Amino acid sequence: MIRAAILGATGYTAYELIKLLLRHPHVEIRCLTSRQEDSPHVSTVHPSLTGLLDLRLTQPDVQQVVDLSDIVFSCLPHAASAESVAEILAASDRIKMVDFSADYRLTDLAVYEHWYGVTHPDPQRVGVTPYGLGEWFADSIQEARLVANPGCYPTSAILAIGPLLKAGIASPQDIVIDSKSGVSGAGRSPKLTTLFPECNESFSAYGVGQHRHTPEIEQVLSTLAGENVDLIFTPHLVPMDRGILTTAYVRPKGSVTQEAVMAELRKAYEGSPFVQVVDHLPATKHVSGTNFCHLTARIVNQRIVLISCIDNLIKGASGAAVQNMNLMFGWDMTLGLL
Amino acid sequence: MIRAAILGATGYTAYELIKLLLRHPHVEIRCLTSRQEDSPHVSTVHPSLTGLLDLRLTQPDVQQVVDLSDIVFSCLPHAASAESVAEILAASDRIKMVDFSADYRLTDLAVYEHWYGVTHPDPQRVGVTPYGLGEWFADSIQEARLVANPGCYPTSAILAIGPLLKAGIASPQDIVIDSKSGVSGAGRSPKLTTLFPECNESFSAYGVGQHRHTPEIEQVLSTLAGENVDLIFTPHLVPMDRGILTTAYVRPKGSVTQEAVMAELRKAYEGSPFVQVVDHLPATKHVSGTNFCHLTARIVNQRIVLISCIDNLIKGASGAAVQNMNLMFGWDMTLGLL
Amino acid sequence: MIRAAILGATGYTAYELIKLLLRHPHVEIRCLTSRQEDSPHVSTVHPSLTGLLDLRLTQPDVQQVVDLSDIVFSCLPHAASAESVAEILAASDRIKMVDFSADYRLTDLAVYEHWYGVTHPDPQRVGVTPYGLGEWFADSIQEARLVANPGCYPTSAILAIGPLLKAGIASPQDIVIDSKSGVSGAGRSPKLTTLFPECNESFSAYGVGQHRHTPEIEQVLSTLAGENVDLIFTPHLVPMDRGILTTAYVRPKGSVTQEAVMAELRKAYEGSPFVQVVDHLPATKHVSGTNFCHLTARIVNQRIVLISCIDNLIKGASGAAVQNMNLMFGWDMTLGLL
Amino acid sequence: MIRAAILGATGYTAYELIKLLLRHPHVEIRCLTSRQEDSPHVSTVHPSLTGLLDLRLTQPDVQQVVDLSDIVFSCLPHAASAESVAEILAASDRIKMVDFSADYRLTDLAVYEHWYGVTHPDPQRVGVTPYGLGEWFADSIQEARLVANPGCYPTSAILAIGPLLKAGIASPQDIVIDSKSGVSGAGRSPKLTTLFPECNESFSAYGVGQHRHTPEIEQVLSTLAGENVDLIFTPHLVPMDRGILTTAYVRPKGSVTQEAVMAELRKAYEGSPFVQVVDHLPATKHVSGTNFCHLTARIVNQRIVLISCIDNLIKGASGAAVQNMNLMFGWDMTLGLL
Repeated sequence: MIRAAILGATGYTAYELIKLLLRHPHVEIRCLTSRQEDSPHVSTVHPSLTGLLDLRLTQPDVQQVVDLSDIVFSCLPHAASAESVAEILAASDRIKMVDFSADYRLTDLAVYEHWYGVTHPDPQRVGVTPYGLGEWFADSIQEARLVANPGCYPTSAILAIGPLLKAGIASPQDIVIDSKSGVSGAGRSPKLTTLFPECNESFSAYGVGQHRHTPEIEQVLSTLAGENVDLIFTPHLVPMDRGILTTAYVRPKGSVTQEAVMAELRKAYEGSPFVQVVDHLPATKHVSGTNFCHLTARIVNQRIVLISCIDNLIKGASGAAVQNMNLMFGWDMTLGLL
Repeated sequence: MIRAAILGATGYTAYELIKLLLRHPHVEIRCLTSRQEDSPHVSTVHPSLTGLLDLRLTQPDVQQVVDLSDIVFSCLPHAASAESVAEILAASDRIKMVDFSADYRLTDLAVYEHWYGVTHPDPQRVGVTPYGLGEWFADSIQEARLVANPGCYPTSAILAIGPLLKAGIASPQDIVIDSKSGVSGAGRSPKLTTLFPECNESFSAYGVGQHRHTPEIEQVLSTLAGENVDLIFTPHLVPMDRGILTTAYVRPKGSVTQEAVMAELRKAYEGSPFVQVVDHLPATKHVSGTNFCHLTARIVNQRIVLISCIDNLIKGASGAAVQNMNLMFGWDMTLGLL
Repeated sequence: MIRAAILGATGYTAYELIKLLLRHPHVEIRCLTSRQEDSPHVSTVHPSLTGLLDLRLTQPDVQQVVDLSDIVFSCLPHAASAESVAEILAASDRIKMVDFSADYRLTDLAVYEHWYGVTHPDPQRVGVTPYGLGEWFADSIQEARLVANPGCYPTSAILAIGPLLKAGIASPQDIVIDSKSGVSGAGRSPKLTTLFPECNESFSAYGVGQHRHTPEIEQVLSTLAGENVDLIFTPHLVPMDRGILTTAYVRPKGSVTQEAVMAELRKAYEGSPFVQVVDHLPATKHVSGTNFCHLTARIVNQRIVLISCIDNLIKGASGAAVQNMNLMFGWDMTLGLL
Repeated sequence: MIRAAILGATGYTAYELIKLLLRHPHVEIRCLTSRQEDSPHVSTVHPSLTGLLDLRLTQPDVQQVVDLSDIVFSCLPHAASAESVAEILAASDRIKMVDFSADYRLTDLAVYEHWYGVTHPDPQRVGVTPYGLGEWFADSIQEARLVANPGCYPTSAILAIGPLLKAGIASPQDIVIDSKSGVSGAGRSPKLTTLFPECNESFSAYGVGQHRHTPEIEQVLSTLAGENVDLIFTPHLVPMDRGILTTAYVRPKGSVTQEAVMAELRKAYEGSPFVQVVDHLPATKHVSGTNFCHLTARIVNQRIVLISCIDNLIKGASGAAVQNMNLMFGWDMTLGLL
């Protein structure tokens, strides 16, 4: 058994992570932190955990975290997360970490500071921390002490488009990524925009042309394509708790059949238990509460239309983090996730 | 044409009131107030009104309100509302007002101050202001300069139980009122409890034994019964925008048939166009966006089970306010409401 | 007062049409038809209409329909609708009709028969019946005895993209139309795919590359562009009752600023009260229950991203039908719709 | 490892049962039956199971079921279920069975035939088959070859009220049970009443005074009380996928404090890991996807108000079935359920 700590344990991704770790055969949750004054019991913050975990959330304390854990998951906001990562990795060379924030995803410091509007607290790890998408970067993840857990939208987009760029079937130009997400993606802090009567029975686009996941998608797809990609990414808010469906429109290099595209997708994910290439049109409900991605493709009017579904809180966050932990500790990628 | 002002115009009831008044043949909206610094255009606060009303929200100013209006609707919180009512009625003896808050509903000052935990700012109008339920108190409403608009839960409960108490068919003892409301009833201020991912796909009870509508229901039902009633009221939160369904369990005095109960309900609402006594089991969707109450009764195991549905924002708030205005100005009760 | 008949009065669009006509100052509903054996009262089929309309649904009978109406709205399925239209227009040269089906939208008989898989029952009216989008084709609608009411998706797409094609600002090539609709668009016949537990808390694409609204969008946009357009249309199902949001990606001809695009949109809809060009990102809730379209544009990575919202049952169906009726009878386009 | 068969594997309870059994350490699913002609793959019927279970649904065949299983779960409709149970138990004295239908819950044949309107196909097992509520009847369940899995509403009501009747704290008279359920409780057959646009954004009561779970609740509560109970049960439909919240109103025998009631509930469920007595007001979301029941009590106006929450598909059906299987095979009650 290894011991796990979770920093910033009050949000939705932390809650899903706790549920996954409680089912994991080799992990024991020993420390949960939060800035809340009164050190509430975890069942007060997450009533669903009543009777499942008897632990209080404590004020973040580096030494205590280090003493109580072998792996630390940071669910802190960007910048705050990198600060804690730097402190904890400095305090112990035994600890491994998975960072849920964007702090170590972007390899170009300038791009990070442009999109996030902050000075990076831990620049020397930028560009050398593996991007935690197990389906594509398992080798570097296995070696790492720190892994940058991918964003939810990037996961849905990269799993769909990546294989076709890597195989040279799709053009890196003119990519349109139209994504739709459940409301839990907006976090657990009360806001007017995510108040029930505001977003229920409504559908909207947001952050058009300005969403921070854009450079992340561009970077990883460019890596897989071996050249710069040119894309538009548009996120939308769906009146449901969880799930992301991404509809991507890519132009084939030369002519291609639907069969060839599907075959390429199947080949790319042969060894990847969590990506299921399906013939039917998937729905977010088909992967809700799971670490699976359901993916299909159609040829429409000489364009390739790719459709992928994930659970934004599991494959798009906490499930991916457990998958990364499994790789970092040399366990089966699926341990505790099926 | 008369001119209308709305105090506290940023919430859901104010929004519904604006939409109703825009359709009313004799009313023109001239003034909307809000404490917001920047005097936003109404279409910024309520985007649905784009192209329908060209008005800015202004800081509340008694003289301005008086100069611009013949009727003033107060959508302010309790206590704050009574303060404004007192000032406005003092500043002009021409103005009529409808108060959406609870400030003038309870006739006993001690009960008000016990349940609301404040000293009443305008005690002399307490007990002499008519309760604005047009189906039962039209005469006093027609004479009034100020009307206390009923609470949403009380409207659904009183319309259902009132006739049977008044007719002496139902016992005033052992009344159980189990009510279910959409989330808009909780208002438009961001709270964790009404954040989409918290209340979507969930159902809960709240304020059990402590909801402030309890004394209001007790008072009005006691008035109709001619003696004190004894009841339990339990509100619940339904994952939908709007609508209240109340299931009330009352004991008959002596034996009674379902036909007799239905006949009594039909008789009670013969002249009331907004209360429809139906044979089928009503759903909140049947009255959504309307000023109607759909009501039915069943006899189950020697008990009378009453089921009523209203739209909490219309018949439970803004529609009732327009109905009161129609009565106060001597117009047809249904004007602008069908 | 003119008299209206509605053929196929049991569905959602018929229900919305009834509610709109009940508010219309010049129209009286005299006849509702349905194939149902038992001639149910309209309040049995649509409980929300209890107390609002006292009429029974009757078996369709051409002579009766002709005798009881001046305008006939057909909400029948395709092919069945054209049959009735042909019979009714043959039986009286006084009657005007609005057809909700696709039977008279497509001007090319072969395209119609390819996409709908039926032989057209009334071919001589194909290609000569005006397309009922009042914002673009008011002149021909005013002259017509029969108008083809537009599809819901086409309305949302054409209102957004049309002005830029007509003005030559946008290229007719490479248009991507990604649309999202509420479940009422799938109709009122029970199906597994629209059963609550199947589509609630889920988001999916459907009919990718195969939706029958594709040729309709192509045809009307080609007319406005003055040349053939090349597009992909992908519909999605949103877990909400009503509303369509369309996100369209079009390539500008040469370089263009966001200001220029917005100015063109505003110019195009100067005289169109129902299309509101807004600066903010619209949500379907902003137009829910109304005949409005809210529309905006952004420039992202040298592409024009257009976002439009309508209520699929109102501006996408019944509101448009009333707007067409207003034009056909020479009334103000907005009569009964604000 | 034991082998499991599921009869009637296309519905929601069967789907949840499959997911639970896939996680169970001692069970292997070997047979799924359905009347569907084409023996579809389980992932066609339940797309969420893609990659998790490679099995086709087969036509029901007694010998095949017996050969392939050690335990058989019947998710067939009432009467059909008892027929299969009789055949299977006759064909092998090795097989154990859990019946999801109501066929063996009611101990009085006349009551069964009155409420279900059919002649019981297997009367000799009526009255001798244990009621599968592990919290109260574990001893008889452990000995049984056949267990009657409880109804969803009865589970929520009995877990709440049972302890107070058994302890003599609550009166068996005047019990009011007001229950609210998600839509999955209505099953997976397309119906107008559970079509998304009909029940979304709506709340309604149904089967008032006529729901078939009424005699089941009466019977089990009478058993626990040691005398006949007198109750009203009213079910309601909530616009959500899953979850039941029951609000029960019971009269105390003599005076009682909230502390005493809570203490009694805690005592009753000391050894029951799945029933959590909580101080806060529970929500259905707190138990969604789990086999837990969250339960609390309040004293209001000399009445005891009990509030319990379960997941209707897990603790109300498939989780309870696994809990029963665990008892029948002498395993820990919680195996595969945490």
